[in-house]
Amino acid sequence: MKSPAVYPVEPWQVREPALDLERLAQAESVFAVANGHIGLRANLDEGEPHVIAGTYLNSFYEQRPLPYPEGGYGYPEQGQTLVNVTDGKLVRLMVDDEPFHVAHGRLIAHERVLDLRDGVLRRTVDWESPAGRRVRIRTSRLVSFTQRAVAAVDYEVEAVGGPLRITVQSGLVANEEQPHESSDPRVAAALDRPLVAVAQDTEQHGAVLLHRTRASKLLMGAGTDHVVEAPGDYDEETDVREDWARTTVVTVLRPGERLRVTKFLGYAWSSSRSPEALRDQVAGALTGARYAGWDGLAAEQRAYLDDFWDAADVEVEGDPVLQQAVRFGLFHVLQAGARAERRAIGAKGLTGPGYDGHAFWDTEGFVLPLLTYVAPQAAAGALRWRHSILDQARLRARTLGLAGAAFPWRTIHGEECSAYWPAGTAALHLNAVIARAVDRYRQLTGDESLDEECGLEILVETARLWVSYGHHDAAGVWHVDGVTGPDEYSGVTDDNLFTNVMAARNLRAAVEACARRPEAAARLGVRPAETDAWQAAADAVHIPYDERLGVHEQSTGFTRYAPWHFAAEHPGEPLMLRAPYFQLYRRQVVKQADLVLAMHWCPEEFTAEQKARNVDYYERITVRDSSLSACTQAVMCAEVGHLELAHDYACEAALVDLRDLHANTGYGLHLASLAGAWSAIVEGFGGLREQGGELALAPRLPEGITGLRFRLRRRGLRLLVEADQQTVRVTLLDDGGARLPLRLYDEPVEVVAGEPVERTVVPLKPLLPAPTQPPGYAPQRVR
Amino acid sequence: MKSPAVYPVEPWQVREPALDLERLAQAESVFAVANGHIGLRANLDEGEPHVIAGTYLNSFYEQRPLPYPEGGYGYPEQGQTLVNVTDGKLVRLMVDDEPFHVAHGRLIAHERVLDLRDGVLRRTVDWESPAGRRVRIRTSRLVSFTQRAVAAVDYEVEAVGGPLRITVQSGLVANEEQPHESSDPRVAAALDRPLVAVAQDTEQHGAVLLHRTRASKLLMGAGTDHVVEAPGDYDEETDVREDWARTTVVTVLRPGERLRVTKFLGYAWSSSRSPEALRDQVAGALTGARYAGWDGLAAEQRAYLDDFWDAADVEVEGDPVLQQAVRFGLFHVLQAGARAERRAIGAKGLTGPGYDGHAFWDTEGFVLPLLTYVAPQAAAGALRWRHSILDQARLRARTLGLAGAAFPWRTIHGEECSAYWPAGTAALHLNAVIARAVDRYRQLTGDESLDEECGLEILVETARLWVSYGHHDAAGVWHVDGVTGPDEYSGVTDDNLFTNVMAARNLRAAVEACARRPEAAARLGVRPAETDAWQAAADAVHIPYDERLGVHEQSTGFTRYAPWHFAAEHPGEPLMLRAPYFQLYRRQVVKQADLVLAMHWCPEEFTAEQKARNVDYYERITVRDSSLSACTQAVMCAEVGHLELAHDYACEAALVDLRDLHANTGYGLHLASLAGAWSAIVEGFGGLREQGGELALAPRLPEGITGLRFRLRRRGLRLLVEADQQTVRVTLLDDGGARLPLRLYDEPVEVVAGEPVERTVVPLKPLLPAPTQPPGYAPQRVR
Repeated sequence: MKSPAVYPVEPWQVREPALDLERLAQAESVFAVANGHIGLRANLDEGEPHVIAGTYLNSFYEQRPLPYPEGGYGYPEQGQTLVNVTDGKLVRLMVDDEPFHVAHGRLIAHERVLDLRDGVLRRTVDWESPAGRRVRIRTSRLVSFTQRAVAAVDYEVEAVGGPLRITVQSGLVANEEQPHESSDPRVAAALDRPLVAVAQDTEQHGAVLLHRTRASKLLMGAGTDHVVEAPGDYDEETDVREDWARTTVVTVLRPGERLRVTKFLGYAWSSSRSPEALRDQVAGALTGARYAGWDGLAAEQRAYLDDFWDAADVEVEGDPVLQQAVRFGLFHVLQAGARAERRAIGAKGLTGPGYDGHAFWDTEGFVLPLLTYVAPQAAAGALRWRHSILDQARLRARTLGLAGAAFPWRTIHGEECSAYWPAGTAALHLNAVIARAVDRYRQLTGDESLDEECGLEILVETARLWVSYGHHDAAGVWHVDGVTGPDEYSGVTDDNLFTNVMAARNLRAAVEACARRPEAAARLGVRPAETDAWQAAADAVHIPYDERLGVHEQSTGFTRYAPWHFAAEHPGEPLMLRAPYFQLYRRQVVKQADLVLAMHWCPEEFTAEQKARNVDYYERITVRDSSLSACTQAVMCAEVGHLELAHDYACEAALVDLRDLHANTGYGLHLASLAGAWSAIVEGFGGLREQGGELALAPRLPEGITGLRFRLRRRGLRLLVEADQQTVRVTLLDDGGARLPLRLYDEPVEVVAGEPVERTVVPLKPLLPAPTQPPGYAPQRVR
Repeated sequence: MKSPAVYPVEPWQVREPALDLERLAQAESVFAVANGHIGLRANLDEGEPHVIAGTYLNSFYEQRPLPYPEGGYGYPEQGQTLVNVTDGKLVRLMVDDEPFHVAHGRLIAHERVLDLRDGVLRRTVDWESPAGRRVRIRTSRLVSFTQRAVAAVDYEVEAVGGPLRITVQSGLVANEEQPHESSDPRVAAALDRPLVAVAQDTEQHGAVLLHRTRASKLLMGAGTDHVVEAPGDYDEETDVREDWARTTVVTVLRPGERLRVTKFLGYAWSSSRSPEALRDQVAGALTGARYAGWDGLAAEQRAYLDDFWDAADVEVEGDPVLQQAVRFGLFHVLQAGARAERRAIGAKGLTGPGYDGHAFWDTEGFVLPLLTYVAPQAAAGALRWRHSILDQARLRARTLGLAGAAFPWRTIHGEECSAYWPAGTAALHLNAVIARAVDRYRQLTGDESLDEECGLEILVETARLWVSYGHHDAAGVWHVDGVTGPDEYSGVTDDNLFTNVMAARNLRAAVEACARRPEAAARLGVRPAETDAWQAAADAVHIPYDERLGVHEQSTGFTRYAPWHFAAEHPGEPLMLRAPYFQLYRRQVVKQADLVLAMHWCPEEFTAEQKARNVDYYERITVRDSSLSACTQAVMCAEVGHLELAHDYACEAALVDLRDLHANTGYGLHLASLAGAWSAIVEGFGGLREQGGELALAPRLPEGITGLRFRLRRRGLRLLVEADQQTVRVTLLDDGGARLPLRLYDEPVEVVAGEPVERTVVPLKPLLPAPTQPPGYAPQRVR
């Protein structure tokens, strides 16, 4: 997991100072712009060269069959894959009679900058054609946070010598060729020409193309509009075919003159509306965009982001690498969720085709904890999406012989798409993680509307799932057998501790929710005997513990298993690509935090000594072949006092994509890890927890971080936490009589607006020395 | 599992008194003729109507890709499917200008008889054409036990009215159309036109066609020769194309006159020889067949079977249904294995395309125990086949990160073809079952040649597998984690008891074999430290036992699992077709004998009380969705004194195909169950066991069986055991000074030629009352 820094370390931007064709795929993901509804991979304006062309509309997917050599009852028969929709990013350039291409002629300079405060991707190019004609190109690209259906490209070309005939071809292209499927199961299947033409229109300065997916029958529209600024005469014309439209602008520039083409993009899709309605929707979006103009869109974008950073920024003094990375992560998490609005937030957002564009438990487990604190409306939207697929989850539970609802391990539209049940469908903990996110949203925001509209129903249906899945043994102990916990190197185990404590919490949350809303609960058919059964199961839940070793067991029997033989390993490639599942499942090797995650999310279930001993035990056998691990290890290492190790893990989580640590950033960003980096810092070094309905803080910084400042929203109030090695200060940023009780190093305090609370840092002596990791698996030290 | 008798109960034959098109597929399997090398499904002579046309050559297969929606390390990428080869059974008939077809005109009579003593399938038909022409047809078909590459059809047609112009078209047809794949995973994938024409030849009275499979590149040849007997003039001509050859005989018959066409078939295949060599081999086979003629072939067939029955027959007095069924089973087991000669004996023999024609542990587990007693040379051939795939098994072990050899769960050519690893590759017990078969062969036959040639190597390599798979815990106890035992409704469990005791036995057998042959062991690299490790593992093996319930656990934690809710079930359809694996895996529901099988095969590991209690416990949760279960339940129910229940299970095992109890006999016979029926009777009611190298007998008959006589071979001697309700007699059938020590009801006795030993039956009072089965799963009582 070593990778050099390719982007300069700068606090508020990510910059590519030169074009590296070897890292093109990574850059396509890292520089992607999106708003949660539309996503544009950072393909070059001229489209080529590219590794993966990507333009995505949230939840716009195609179905495909899932073929099994040996089928089985309940196996999903249809997969869902996010579609690369009609590409409107394209702006091709001809200089005299030669097409601009970075690999032809001479690329004198290339730079791309993703500005995290502006929300704009800017590119500058200085190029000489094979015939010796030289141009400078400046382009900007944004996907609007304020106008959900709109993206825009500002394209400016300047003649250096001249005069030059400049031709700009602004395209819309459907069914771009996609790369072939990889044998790596993590790489999504490519789909060949999924879009069927429905209608085409030429508008005054652009065009609209309507297409429908072949199997899933979803309709989409993409349209362009253009504003041209030229120093002299120019011609503009638009051609349209079934799978493409092209607006061409041609002019002659003298040295120093510039042609500017502003391209507005409008997108819409629907499973139910008519082509005519969609065409009008696209045109409406374009009208709004043209009315704002490029400068208006850019100004709205900046204002939106100013507001975001005001309540979300994390400042890391002393570690500029981590500083840049955590802002990069916050920005991309916002891009994934800001305007998703009752659509899924996929594991890769809208940055690439990895995992087929599916949403997993990553959303509720790692992304929503962050969004609930910094962009609660986005968290609410994602949870409303979960509620919208409750019917599919109920049907799935019936298919599996269960009560309540069984949410899909991976999906876009709501149906289970996991084709390997021991890792997918059996990972029922997803349901408890969703319930936790629902409950946390209400507690942290104070917003009861979600609970009222759909939260209660989710809690009730997941509670029903658990009691139908678990059972009481002859001694009355409640067990949950045959599940796969977070650690995907263990499968179909009994009494996975994480699952059990999360299920118990799910059951208790459902009991409490029904008590809060007895009438609504009655409408859902909940009777006292049912809540009694939930409470009884939660109270009798089995917690596997190894008395001999003095540590908790990840699942029953886990600590009795044989060790993994690390001597023979070749770090760098995940174990799952060089060992069969059954060898992994039956040994003490952990892909990703599982028991340790239980300690992070359910801290009240463990004593401080148990946490220290468990961290020590599981650190030695965890290989982090999943990107969902380092952030959790950071939080728990910090909690038990291994601050330097926590710092290493925080960097690993934050740098997953900037350094391409899993060698697959090209297929899309690892949003859970990027969100997890925030957890690593704020929950790890800030010691942020929710304890009994109250916010708790206990900042303790590692040596390399001299100061930490973070902001968050809680119950409508904005909080600023500032800490250095000696002192911590908590400030309520809102005016008026607001006051917020909280716990600071276990001391109850109340923060009042205008009266920050300040305390001396309480240091923690770790119970045990810092643990080692398996040979070759220590986290990289990036300082 | 209820099905009416469709074939009359007759002691030495199976007869179809009328054509039932609804049961055509079942009849195609039941009346199949084979010799272990060639197999002909009982398709009608004229080819149509059929459900599945089938002509098989042992191990002649085609490769096909195995597509996974989510791949994984070590998943087999290529499947293997037994191919329907060039069909030589075809004899079409035209009566005047109308083709004979059972569904056209009027089928006045139809009868087919499979004669279990002759080894010939005979058919008689009385038919009137749509135009009112009437013929009688008598055909006979055999696959020769004595001439391995030869089959023959004797076709005789008689004019009832007349004169009639009779045209007989004797065909060879490659690439017959096959039925489509079913969604039932047990139904084999069909392959479309797998044979590519290589060469064709017209011979004097027939033709030879050579074909090669597209992917597996196997070459095969099929040839015909004909002898015609006609009352008057006739014309004969042969046409050949790439995919067919046709020999036509035409004559005119007056009323009562007959045309007889004897058709000889020769087959050959090879992965290495040339088309020319194969053509000559086919011609040679045909020469031999023509030399013998139909009558010669039939006489050889009868003599071969007389010899077989002489040492294999089982006589069941008082139960004619079971009498017929056990002979039917013995005959088909012989047909599957007689001339396999270092090729696999598939789970369905050569009777249908089910399970893709693969061999499983069925062979060593259920078929070879029988063949070792009644046709030891066939058992030796099958074990030599296992040895021939040792290199593939070693390679598979390496792929899986294991030492020694890991034999494939299902295969034809030796490579693993199991595409669902939790049920396939993880079922490592297969290796211990192979080791047991190797060891039993030596012990029971006294033939050391197999052990010398390949037995030792199999024992050593499987022992190496086990020590690399298991591990000693901190207390020194040896565990085998993460395996699937025989019960396929439990998957990837820890310390499956059956696997553990069988692995320990495998390890001990390897230790003993190395001690017997120290020099050969040294050549295999075995050092004393290695055999010490084998012994240590075997001595420390964990045997899971539930103290509270007083029963053994099928695997660790099994008896703590939730029960299965049988109330909601619909008996008749296997649970696996209506519940997901993970619901089955985590509950106390058993597909097939597992712990009970351990008690059958490793009786010394259990006390009589444990056996009684375990049978009682597991009977109540076993659903027999596998045909490998009833026979074992019969044996163990008999041992603990539930003789009537054992009788029911014996009938179920024996009638699996005659009554189509699993509703899939059409895809091929259930050879393990047919062989298991012999176990049910001989080991169940005869009490036959091997105890410490000695044969043990303890006959106890159920009420419905008034007398039982069975024969077997042991160390070259033929033994006859006769029992009724009062008396048992054991006779050595061989002359000379032969003597055989054995145990009769635990009393050591010695049987000497000419001096039968006679004893009174020692009755057994069962410890517990006969158990019940899950609702709807009691065995059918057939008397």
